[in-house]
Amino acid sequence: MMAKLYDFELSGNCYKVRLLSALLGVSIDIVPVDLRAGEHKKPPLIDLNPFGEVPIFLDGEVVLRDSQAILIYIARKWGGERWLPNDPVGLAHVAEWLMTAENEIAQGPADARVIVKFGRDLDLGLARTKATRILGLLEARLSRQPWLAAERPTIADVACMPYVALGHEGGVMLDDYPAIRAWIGRIKALPGFVGMPAL
Amino acid sequence: MMAKLYDFELSGNCYKVRLLSALLGVSIDIVPVDLRAGEHKKPPLIDLNPFGEVPIFLDGEVVLRDSQAILIYIARKWGGERWLPNDPVGLAHVAEWLMTAENEIAQGPADARVIVKFGRDLDLGLARTKATRILGLLEARLSRQPWLAAERPTIADVACMPYVALGHEGGVMLDDYPAIRAWIGRIKALPGFVGMPAL
Repeated sequence: MMAKLYDFELSGNCYKVRLLSALLGVSIDIVPVDLRAGEHKKPPLIDLNPFGEVPIFLDGEVVLRDSQAILIYIARKWGGERWLPNDPVGLAHVAEWLMTAENEIAQGPADARVIVKFGRDLDLGLARTKATRILGLLEARLSRQPWLAAERPTIADVACMPYVALGHEGGVMLDDYPAIRAWIGRIKALPGFVGMPAL
Repeated sequence: MMAKLYDFELSGNCYKVRLLSALLGVSIDIVPVDLRAGEHKKPPLIDLNPFGEVPIFLDGEVVLRDSQAILIYIARKWGGERWLPNDPVGLAHVAEWLMTAENEIAQGPADARVIVKFGRDLDLGLARTKATRILGLLEARLSRQPWLAAERPTIADVACMPYVALGHEGGVMLDDYPAIRAWIGRIKALPGFVGMPAL
């Protein structure tokens, strides 16, 4: 049976899961969730993910929440070591950037977008300040190497790219970050790449 | 050569690294960092971690930032599969809770503490609201099972416990959360456990 993704098309977190599946050539069943109707906050979805969020990923008996954790699952199950190394050093370096996606990118460009595009009641100035900080760190990193965590693309890049590339929807522009723009271009050129609206 | 931790004793994130090392019986060289003097924002530390934060973990040529990524490294290098499973399902379930430590717990009880104890300029009401949400989710989980991510303790528990147990320093009390208190007690009873101030 095909794995199933409870999905919201405009969510960068859901898009990450669609993107990695496409890059690995894994077919998944995409089930749109009506966030505006609060479907993710009610049964049956709230029973699958008590955090009340999408993405939710189902594979047989396995139920997973959190986009970064889902990337880890997909990479380990279907991607061999290519997208997620197994040795302590390689694994930890990918994890550093998964944590950056979960923390600095979520609280920076992703929050700025959700405030501007979806009207979420958060501090836009704070989100943009955090966005500027993390974009500077990413620019410095990507000025020296083509991919975030290894000599090749990994789920670190898949996890970090979406909300950086969508930041313009929250007024977080990339004009001053040529290395970030080039990195996004390299990801878009990967075989199997799929996009999402506004990307 | 012993691995080295650039450490701040009152940081729950640094404590996680000390705790896992102790639980695994791994000796590490602990180097105190003077955060008040901004040592983490200046060379040589800023060159080791451009994010300007502790913990920083050095093991030979390997340099790691982010407490959750460091836990992954230590567990994978010295802990076998016991503290970090290698199969896709087990690994992803641990990752779900590492992300919770990086996100909801960091923005909830940890932020509340840093505001109250260290005077950080953040929104205390928001941090406490987020703390209440994640404590409710943790309580529900731990009412049904003794450990967060598996049948046994894993780095998920090591990652999530410190800032939950330190929350009282930010006014985030655990009186209404008996399952969380019992879980903290189980962690404290693990062979090799070490504490930190206020825990």
